[in-house]
Amino acid sequence: MPGNSFGQLFRVTTAGESHGPGYVVIIDGVPPGLPLDVSDLQPDLDRRRPGQSKVTTQRDEADEPEILAGVFEGHTTGTAIAIRIANRDQRSRDYSDIQDKYRPGHADYTFDAKYGRRDYRGGGRSSARETAVRVAAGAVARKLLGGIGVRIVGYVRQVGPIVAEIDEPSSITLEQVETNIVRCPDAGAAERMIELIEQMRRDEDSIGGVAEIVATGVPPGWGEPVFDKLKADLGKAMFSLPAVLGVEYGAGFGVATARGSQNNDLFTTEGERITTSSNRHGGMLGGISSGLPIVVRCAVKPTSSLSRPQPTVTRDGEATTIRTRGRHDPCLLPRFVPMGEAMMAITLADHWLRQKSQCG
Amino acid sequence: MPGNSFGQLFRVTTAGESHGPGYVVIIDGVPPGLPLDVSDLQPDLDRRRPGQSKVTTQRDEADEPEILAGVFEGHTTGTAIAIRIANRDQRSRDYSDIQDKYRPGHADYTFDAKYGRRDYRGGGRSSARETAVRVAAGAVARKLLGGIGVRIVGYVRQVGPIVAEIDEPSSITLEQVETNIVRCPDAGAAERMIELIEQMRRDEDSIGGVAEIVATGVPPGWGEPVFDKLKADLGKAMFSLPAVLGVEYGAGFGVATARGSQNNDLFTTEGERITTSSNRHGGMLGGISSGLPIVVRCAVKPTSSLSRPQPTVTRDGEATTIRTRGRHDPCLLPRFVPMGEAMMAITLADHWLRQKSQCG
Amino acid sequence: MPGNSFGQLFRVTTAGESHGPGYVVIIDGVPPGLPLDVSDLQPDLDRRRPGQSKVTTQRDEADEPEILAGVFEGHTTGTAIAIRIANRDQRSRDYSDIQDKYRPGHADYTFDAKYGRRDYRGGGRSSARETAVRVAAGAVARKLLGGIGVRIVGYVRQVGPIVAEIDEPSSITLEQVETNIVRCPDAGAAERMIELIEQMRRDEDSIGGVAEIVATGVPPGWGEPVFDKLKADLGKAMFSLPAVLGVEYGAGFGVATARGSQNNDLFTTEGERITTSSNRHGGMLGGISSGLPIVVRCAVKPTSSLSRPQPTVTRDGEATTIRTRGRHDPCLLPRFVPMGEAMMAITLADHWLRQKSQCG
Amino acid sequence: MPGNSFGQLFRVTTAGESHGPGYVVIIDGVPPGLPLDVSDLQPDLDRRRPGQSKVTTQRDEADEPEILAGVFEGHTTGTAIAIRIANRDQRSRDYSDIQDKYRPGHADYTFDAKYGRRDYRGGGRSSARETAVRVAAGAVARKLLGGIGVRIVGYVRQVGPIVAEIDEPSSITLEQVETNIVRCPDAGAAERMIELIEQMRRDEDSIGGVAEIVATGVPPGWGEPVFDKLKADLGKAMFSLPAVLGVEYGAGFGVATARGSQNNDLFTTEGERITTSSNRHGGMLGGISSGLPIVVRCAVKPTSSLSRPQPTVTRDGEATTIRTRGRHDPCLLPRFVPMGEAMMAITLADHWLRQKSQCG
Repeated sequence: MPGNSFGQLFRVTTAGESHGPGYVVIIDGVPPGLPLDVSDLQPDLDRRRPGQSKVTTQRDEADEPEILAGVFEGHTTGTAIAIRIANRDQRSRDYSDIQDKYRPGHADYTFDAKYGRRDYRGGGRSSARETAVRVAAGAVARKLLGGIGVRIVGYVRQVGPIVAEIDEPSSITLEQVETNIVRCPDAGAAERMIELIEQMRRDEDSIGGVAEIVATGVPPGWGEPVFDKLKADLGKAMFSLPAVLGVEYGAGFGVATARGSQNNDLFTTEGERITTSSNRHGGMLGGISSGLPIVVRCAVKPTSSLSRPQPTVTRDGEATTIRTRGRHDPCLLPRFVPMGEAMMAITLADHWLRQKSQCG
Repeated sequence: MPGNSFGQLFRVTTAGESHGPGYVVIIDGVPPGLPLDVSDLQPDLDRRRPGQSKVTTQRDEADEPEILAGVFEGHTTGTAIAIRIANRDQRSRDYSDIQDKYRPGHADYTFDAKYGRRDYRGGGRSSARETAVRVAAGAVARKLLGGIGVRIVGYVRQVGPIVAEIDEPSSITLEQVETNIVRCPDAGAAERMIELIEQMRRDEDSIGGVAEIVATGVPPGWGEPVFDKLKADLGKAMFSLPAVLGVEYGAGFGVATARGSQNNDLFTTEGERITTSSNRHGGMLGGISSGLPIVVRCAVKPTSSLSRPQPTVTRDGEATTIRTRGRHDPCLLPRFVPMGEAMMAITLADHWLRQKSQCG
Repeated sequence: MPGNSFGQLFRVTTAGESHGPGYVVIIDGVPPGLPLDVSDLQPDLDRRRPGQSKVTTQRDEADEPEILAGVFEGHTTGTAIAIRIANRDQRSRDYSDIQDKYRPGHADYTFDAKYGRRDYRGGGRSSARETAVRVAAGAVARKLLGGIGVRIVGYVRQVGPIVAEIDEPSSITLEQVETNIVRCPDAGAAERMIELIEQMRRDEDSIGGVAEIVATGVPPGWGEPVFDKLKADLGKAMFSLPAVLGVEYGAGFGVATARGSQNNDLFTTEGERITTSSNRHGGMLGGISSGLPIVVRCAVKPTSSLSRPQPTVTRDGEATTIRTRGRHDPCLLPRFVPMGEAMMAITLADHWLRQKSQCG
Repeated sequence: MPGNSFGQLFRVTTAGESHGPGYVVIIDGVPPGLPLDVSDLQPDLDRRRPGQSKVTTQRDEADEPEILAGVFEGHTTGTAIAIRIANRDQRSRDYSDIQDKYRPGHADYTFDAKYGRRDYRGGGRSSARETAVRVAAGAVARKLLGGIGVRIVGYVRQVGPIVAEIDEPSSITLEQVETNIVRCPDAGAAERMIELIEQMRRDEDSIGGVAEIVATGVPPGWGEPVFDKLKADLGKAMFSLPAVLGVEYGAGFGVATARGSQNNDLFTTEGERITTSSNRHGGMLGGISSGLPIVVRCAVKPTSSLSRPQPTVTRDGEATTIRTRGRHDPCLLPRFVPMGEAMMAITLADHWLRQKSQCG
């Protein structure tokens, strides 16, 4: 199938470009009877939107979703839900630069190589603005999962060399995350991250980082071996987000230097319930949820758009330089958090429905 | 859909358990006219098979594939290909331990939680022995891709703290990899890795590591935004393999500490061809192949099965201990290499057909 | 997957309800570079729209499509296309009847049984108004296919007992079909059909019929055995349309009384080309296109909505009567023609891309 | 996706050719805990197998299934089930005729047109022998459905001009069907059908017919609008079977001449239950099961293989004649019955799981 859909039973399909009329998402497979209106979507959209703080791009777009289908009298009907987010900021500009020159780190060249043409305005289909409708779909998934006690919280774990100290990922709350504009629950680290990001803006540069997304309350048993393991589908979900170059669970790349005798999480009981005494496995064993918190970390690259001039080539291969005018995030991480949460929510909602179908 | 299939147009479906009659894979979507017989499958199966060297499990299974369908007069017909690998080693054993006790790090508990029952013999469906038929399918994909100049080579990059020095991943050849039993092209590192692995066996312990898989010759343009980006589907492919807890491309988690001005690979030309002067992006931009080598690294955990006794619980939650009798790999990495290559090949073959369908 | 998508590589996903804000369709997989604007969509939408003539419902809705995504500078970009058709006629009405009473022949009861709730306004999701966006998607498919010489023409073959005489289905042109409001190329039959339909309106009754849809120019080789045979996917496409209770190809149900010696279409040559001297097989052999015209007939039931009172029950099972106020088609056939053509076009576009991917 | 799979959640994938090593089916998505062994599969396979009576081909093949995966200790495990049926009768023959000449009514020409090559031995992949593994998969589906009270019975409704009189399709039992070799529950008609079929054999000719397949006990609510309506997926299932040129439900093509006032099945109650007083709708309204019996009829063409010589052309387009030596069914209907039942069972099992996932 073409690539604009995600999920098997909770199925999200998006369309739209950065500077076209707007974005549409169709969410198919949402069970009937879920209370839903735009107020369920707005909070996460506001956390993703540009212009929200001094550490993000200063562009101002209020992403206001409109529910076009699938909701009646305040509840989902079980039929396809359509949500639209119009583009407000469609003023015509001079795109001649981006039309002919390949921005380093962006998809301009590969889109041309693939399709032979592209909507070059603001990145067109490759713009991260597309994640707005993913976040809307994620809010639906999150609401659905909330009904069975699944909670998803993401935060910034690292910006450049600054790493937050987090004792227990599953204990972090949304409130803690939202206490600062960089979305890092370690207040000291957050301050230093903000400073570093502001320095980047002054330097006409950008900086990468790591986001950590945690799901608690997922019962054991979700995930479909041998290919649609939960870790496989979650990995795909995270890698489908722009700028993600690495994904890891639990101990992650740390397993490379570990011995089995240290790395194995030992089974034990908590009351009647079987559990493990540690969570190096990141909440999935054999690709199936174990009941422990699901912990995923995403490595997000520094923004490719820079205000300083960068050497590049034109479509015809002639050497030139490009500087991205306009406003961009000096660090993607603060706005990445709701995107990561959304993809986690969509993936878990999908696997919940899959588990219900076969073993329900 | 249920979870035992992978790929959209080059579609692989597997069945089989570790100690049942054997494994079957159906490969649907292979174009007609590809020369194919079992001799194309055997080499990769031999690289995956147990008992191949002193650093792997000593169990001896010659995995001999049988082509049951889809090949006629030595060529694929365009119809579904079926390949069977029978289990030779089905002697009845005493499985009472594994039947009632949950092995740490394994999927025994989560399978029970999901399905309510499981084929416990040797891990049943969760056994890594399932990858044998993936490797067979990967050999078909590899042959198909070979026809258009795509070459896939994997090797062990790290075992415990020992990291191989590799100047240029895309220059490594299969021959170099196969010069030693640990499949590491850095001879000095390979020696130390072998020593470490043997130490692990003596210690009744195991050790993790990192494998690196590289594809060269992939033309720019493969990958299907926005969800089926090549990096997303490759990520899923790798995470679908047992024991993988982390996946990264190019600079990977290193992007977290990088600045945009350092991280951006700058466009330039090589003759008529547009390319980049470095490959921190791992061969994909915007999730579409850029023409540069595709470089993926997988973090593989230390074998969970240990000969030494480990505390655990029974199905009923009673505390007990388990020691995995029998023979296992003290380090999964040497045998992981052909598995990673196979999943890379399957994913690329799939995306090649997808690219042909839409933009061909 | 949920049920609101059709097609594998030319993939259509719809959302929307009869009296909600409107309808949206996302068409994923359209190759880049196809010239496209709303003027390509409007003609087929006009042929489908209500109020077009005295034999259709008198309700007046001008279905004006808006392209929201996937088209740039007048050409498709290869990314997902979104088209919206807003509902104009959303004035609030008294739906108390339809809310509580089950309309005979409609999906009110089964939607309640399935989902536990439904958008009852005008049929909600079960309304045939949903086919408007299918027709828009079909126009895109038709334009794509036109580029390789595939032409699709549908017409009304039968209304009640009146059967059109058509010597050679593949010779009928769109112009011939559009010479009369009932869309029957046999002028004499058309006149009698119109009379019968007007009689039905006077009688507060409705009448069924048969539509025939013909595709010419389809090269041999499309269709994917063994399950996605072209006849299987076309059959699904047609049965997915409202009111269709029977589908047949070529000789259709006539094969039941035929002998093999009469029924076999014999192979012969036409110049260099292999063909058959007759087309009882309807253009597909073994589920693969043969190069002969593809001929499908759909049996369409009489409109279930009647102005006369009909006995029924309420949601609570109490006996009552219902009469459908408002305006409906006394015969669905004239407006069914563009719907059938659209589903034929979508199915063929999908199979063309599938053929390209594997055998291209 | 390639065409050798059917179903979304109860997913069947087949491989195999008529004169290769044999057939394999993988059934993915069967819930765990279903008691299953080969004795569940054999009865339906025996009803499908050749050589079962004087009205079928005299070739003798005992189709003995072997379960290769997915069943443990007599129960399904929830993982993929693999079933193999080996070809016994693989003796080498002279296929030169069929290799170079196109058999009228068969897929020889279209396979060549599609794939450029084909396994010509006995029809290869296009042989109806492929349905053996579908029947095995259908037996699994049937057993699953039996647990919730769904019963599927098929029979021959018509052979040539001889039409069985059946008052109430849903009252027919398997026992009644199996009282005669033609599988027609109207004993008088059955006798005449047998005579006619024997006449066909003597005439070196063949005859078509109609099979009727009925499912009872399906609860209201199965089917996934707007594309995966139950009637759409069932239609696809039936048209995916060889030789089917027409499919209809309930009143079928009879709706063409019906008025709405006669055709509407009126809602009423039976105790607490809402039902309709007649079943012209064939058990589905809006493509969702209504709780009434699901009644489908398939038009099956006369066997294309004839012992008498038929004119045709070679691959090179030269005129020639062909006579199909060997033994074939003079009428496909008696052996079609279990095939139609199998596809009905697979489709219903799939839709049951789909209904559970979303509305369960």
